[in-house]
Amino acid sequence: MKNRRIVLASRPEGEPTPTDFRLETVDLPPVGEGQVLLKTRYLSLDPYMRGRMSEGPSYAPPTQLGEPMPGGTVCEVIDSRAQGFAKGDTVVAFNGWQEYSVADPKGLRKLDPSAAPVSTALGILGMPGLTAYAGLLNIGQPKAGETVVVAAASGAVGSVAGQIAKIKGCRTIGIAGGRAKCDYVVNELGFDACLDHHSDTLAADLKAVCTAGIHVYFENVGGKVFEAVLPLMNDFGRVPVCGLIAQYSATELPPGPDRTPLVMRAILTKRLTFRGFIVTDFASQSAECFRDVGQWLREGKLKYKEDIVDGLESAPNAFIGMLNGRNFGKLLVRF
Amino acid sequence: MKNRRIVLASRPEGEPTPTDFRLETVDLPPVGEGQVLLKTRYLSLDPYMRGRMSEGPSYAPPTQLGEPMPGGTVCEVIDSRAQGFAKGDTVVAFNGWQEYSVADPKGLRKLDPSAAPVSTALGILGMPGLTAYAGLLNIGQPKAGETVVVAAASGAVGSVAGQIAKIKGCRTIGIAGGRAKCDYVVNELGFDACLDHHSDTLAADLKAVCTAGIHVYFENVGGKVFEAVLPLMNDFGRVPVCGLIAQYSATELPPGPDRTPLVMRAILTKRLTFRGFIVTDFASQSAECFRDVGQWLREGKLKYKEDIVDGLESAPNAFIGMLNGRNFGKLLVRF
Repeated sequence: MKNRRIVLASRPEGEPTPTDFRLETVDLPPVGEGQVLLKTRYLSLDPYMRGRMSEGPSYAPPTQLGEPMPGGTVCEVIDSRAQGFAKGDTVVAFNGWQEYSVADPKGLRKLDPSAAPVSTALGILGMPGLTAYAGLLNIGQPKAGETVVVAAASGAVGSVAGQIAKIKGCRTIGIAGGRAKCDYVVNELGFDACLDHHSDTLAADLKAVCTAGIHVYFENVGGKVFEAVLPLMNDFGRVPVCGLIAQYSATELPPGPDRTPLVMRAILTKRLTFRGFIVTDFASQSAECFRDVGQWLREGKLKYKEDIVDGLESAPNAFIGMLNGRNFGKLLVRF
Repeated sequence: MKNRRIVLASRPEGEPTPTDFRLETVDLPPVGEGQVLLKTRYLSLDPYMRGRMSEGPSYAPPTQLGEPMPGGTVCEVIDSRAQGFAKGDTVVAFNGWQEYSVADPKGLRKLDPSAAPVSTALGILGMPGLTAYAGLLNIGQPKAGETVVVAAASGAVGSVAGQIAKIKGCRTIGIAGGRAKCDYVVNELGFDACLDHHSDTLAADLKAVCTAGIHVYFENVGGKVFEAVLPLMNDFGRVPVCGLIAQYSATELPPGPDRTPLVMRAILTKRLTFRGFIVTDFASQSAECFRDVGQWLREGKLKYKEDIVDGLESAPNAFIGMLNGRNFGKLLVRF
């Protein structure tokens, strides 16, 4: 049986290009005792994958050249030699950019397709949802009446973080790229305001809308958005550092001066807490998260948007576009 | 009755100079009902005073031009019209760079001169001691076997932070300026090692000695010490940001490139916690702190060193010297 997959062909210098990926067809290994054969239905595309394409230390080892690009997937079990899994089951897996895979049951999670659309297991009821929930609540610790600013507010993580902040009674300000996304964040997701990071006056725009300063900044971006936020942080403010998409493909540091002293001075004099996190740090909270998020979804308090492209071949360009903010909602590849 | 005091004469551009201070003699107001007349015995000189000399937002309002420089003091009550205070009592006050003051009892703390040398109420059993204790234990959260790096390790705060880390079972590395201080930190204070920040190979020296990385960095300095520490921080490391003496007198940002992305990337991928604090944030822990520190002192587990200069006139130059690391131990002015 043949499998089509996309492997890492070369390590990008700066922004990835299509030639950094290679579509190939390989033989699928036989399904061993205790294993299952999976057919991918949805592949999740997420910013962290940019980090795996580069060598050098990060929180996960880099993907090796010639290996499939990593990624969370929703799959159908099409053959099973493993107890507890039957043909036709739908599972969440982490088998990357490929159409099929032979997998061990460890690490698979069975889905109930009647409970929610299965694609949500890669979004609001999956890794991005837990990222938003755990980062905001554990590190951001939003209190009713506080002002929470969320970068990448229309994205898979930011949209959830901001809506949970609203549920917790906070004034919630989004930052997103372009009028359409900002309108969606305010009109559909219910944020109190959303600012376009393309604005030449972002810092002033943000100051005008954050009249009581910023208590929590959910950091997903870095760069000029961070620079606009920092002077507005209130004493004892919290900054969950979830992602830094603006700098992932940078090949050199920005020009001077070195602004590190400004950051450190703000941390000191305002007694800020900056804390980086990765979703797996909060894996133990996933049941609680999905219970809460599931209930908020049923109550209509949480909304989500998917940006779906079709076919394995679409993955590289969709991924490259996401790194430039061209997706609108949780980016998925449908097979 | 006449009072001699040192007031802020001008706001320094960069490093303070003697002309930024002015010694003046003024009439002392009469002692009102419910007040006490204090004669200063010791004045504490501390890095935070540099911040008060500048305008602009910080965690305390700036000292006004013509007003006395602020500072903690140990004083003798020489006249009292306040209940609970008698002539001859020794108190801790915050009445700044002056020989006498008329004070309200609120904010005074009576000392028992038989319990410990009264000057320690400005050092290890005072604000610097609580700063070290609270910052290290609440934010640093050192665990036995971890590596703790302490900047300004021979100073009033760093020396206590590092010794408490040793008491908690940590491997403790100091950073200080010059051979004499480093020898003192290792031989007298019992740190496992101490590196000279004047070394051209500080980053390599630190890497060589921190063979298990760094779990806690007690930040008092900023600048090149911070740059040497950051690459060595372990996952889930903690950075209590207590002070940034290397940048207090800077008139401009360092030359580029802008290293902020390196700091943010380290926070993200290593899941670091940076948290700024000021001693007053932990005022509620002072009784517990002084109980613990007092016991460690009696048991010989904590040592301290005072750097004493004599006379009010000595204060400006001693203070300027401290900002350049010329003090050796807790800097005090004795009257």
